[in-house]
Amino acid sequence: MDASNGSRSFEETTYADIKSFFDSAPPLKDGAETKRKLEEFMKNNHSPSENGRFNRVVCVTSGGTTVPLEQRCVRYIDNFSSGHRGAASTEYFLKAGYAVIFLHRRWVLERQHVSYLTRLLICRHYLLALTTSRRHWNVFAEEPASHIAGLFLMINCLNVLKLLVNQILQAMQILQLVALSMKNLGSSALFYLAAAVSDFYVPWENMAVHKIQSSSGPLDMRLAQVPKMLSVLRKDWAPMAFCISFKLETDTKILLEKADMALKKYNMHMVVANELLTRKDEVIVVTKSGNIPVHRDKTRVGADVEDPLIKLIVDRHSAYIVTS
Amino acid sequence: MDASNGSRSFEETTYADIKSFFDSAPPLKDGAETKRKLEEFMKNNHSPSENGRFNRVVCVTSGGTTVPLEQRCVRYIDNFSSGHRGAASTEYFLKAGYAVIFLHRRWVLERQHVSYLTRLLICRHYLLALTTSRRHWNVFAEEPASHIAGLFLMINCLNVLKLLVNQILQAMQILQLVALSMKNLGSSALFYLAAAVSDFYVPWENMAVHKIQSSSGPLDMRLAQVPKMLSVLRKDWAPMAFCISFKLETDTKILLEKADMALKKYNMHMVVANELLTRKDEVIVVTKSGNIPVHRDKTRVGADVEDPLIKLIVDRHSAYIVTS
Repeated sequence: MDASNGSRSFEETTYADIKSFFDSAPPLKDGAETKRKLEEFMKNNHSPSENGRFNRVVCVTSGGTTVPLEQRCVRYIDNFSSGHRGAASTEYFLKAGYAVIFLHRRWVLERQHVSYLTRLLICRHYLLALTTSRRHWNVFAEEPASHIAGLFLMINCLNVLKLLVNQILQAMQILQLVALSMKNLGSSALFYLAAAVSDFYVPWENMAVHKIQSSSGPLDMRLAQVPKMLSVLRKDWAPMAFCISFKLETDTKILLEKADMALKKYNMHMVVANELLTRKDEVIVVTKSGNIPVHRDKTRVGADVEDPLIKLIVDRHSAYIVTS
Repeated sequence: MDASNGSRSFEETTYADIKSFFDSAPPLKDGAETKRKLEEFMKNNHSPSENGRFNRVVCVTSGGTTVPLEQRCVRYIDNFSSGHRGAASTEYFLKAGYAVIFLHRRWVLERQHVSYLTRLLICRHYLLALTTSRRHWNVFAEEPASHIAGLFLMINCLNVLKLLVNQILQAMQILQLVALSMKNLGSSALFYLAAAVSDFYVPWENMAVHKIQSSSGPLDMRLAQVPKMLSVLRKDWAPMAFCISFKLETDTKILLEKADMALKKYNMHMVVANELLTRKDEVIVVTKSGNIPVHRDKTRVGADVEDPLIKLIVDRHSAYIVTS
């Protein structure tokens, strides 16, 4: 849009929408505690190394965000995303030497990425839980994703910080806090935004307070668009970081075109394009220099697509750090 | 409404809505297999006993149903219900000697009702799984609710049939099949309808085929009301059964009034009224002869509200069987 005739530019519109989005959200619950955890984590994990570069830190987002339809939430909009991709990827990032800030949902246990070692450790945890108290059991039952991350915590010396996310407003508030805490890392910061973030939401002030009554006839809803945070992440929150977003479609005919549009529009370094039904077997990594198909190795039992995907990303991030 | 002026009566409206609901649904996937399982289960579990009465069978529904927003479902409306109530209640019904047909969701692991014995058995399962193959692990990871039920299967001689439900159309189709299979039990049949069934849905023919695009601006949705199946359950599907429905509200001021309305409108034998935030501590059982508060025994560690609730229900069902 042409600014000279009084209309707002695309950028101004985006910033205005993002400001309005955050202004209308209720204050982040436990926001101070989250900031404290981030500060402590960054202190432990990003001291400059011998060549002056910081240790690498990746922010992995996973699972679907939810959109409450009532302030005292009974109903909400959710999506297909189980968080499996993010959890599997976290394991590979850790093995590659990254510290990980892992934003995750309460886990819907679908096919989890669980290595043999992790299963052994979980079983040991159960045996201990049986002989101590129910509380240990419940901790696992409530947060298996964080538990798996927690097991790596034991192995990898405290280089995973797990942050529970659920509703869209809170998830974006946490993402902003995380990104701002990673700003000083410069190019050593990586964002792997695998979460299926809600595209539509009900602004807090428009939301019914109590459970919507079903006796009042059909339900008409108008959902506002959630502004894309990718622009402000790239421009303001962590401008030097290497950024990877995801694009999922059900219609293969539009998938690559949409991924390419996202790459350009939001100035991403990579967009991982995947189709709903085949996403666990193959993805296409869309970059400015071309598209790279990545496949699960079907000849190897237990192989997943995240293994080659994270190897590729780590290589590209290394190249980026060298040249930035 | 007065039938003589051409308007439909409440009953006719309800039946027409229910017919339209089922007619518009796609055919139930694995419908023939579900029928076969039900027939086999009923054959094993409802032979007449010495006094000519059938063994008692309860249909327990649990968890929230989902409402897809696209035919190739990416987004759906879900609700707060974790399925805990239904799972806990199943355990008590089994202990009371009932056979259980357990309709459940893929489990969102919140605070599960897991007895010490069950935990021991789960741990044994893990140990076995570690030494055999990943598939055993994944089976547990995918279906912990059915796994817990499965453990009772081992203990209780095959008197739990677990049926996975998820989307609203499929859930109601399965409920209908189950109810029709229980019709012959007469008053020995019990329906414990703890599931949080969606009140609103998008009829299949109105649903977008592919993922709704977010670039097209705000999203306007009109959701139709899901017709209440309780009327047709009481009148046609299993008219002699003892029927218990649930009513949840976030506003305590309207809870009892709504529960009472449901009791009368749908001719339920009991309505279990509960408020969102206190539902794990207390419920009020609304009946034609008065309201009965039921509380969790807070002096006993690990006590839940389902324990006294199921005891009360079993007593009332016994009295019903004697007088019917």
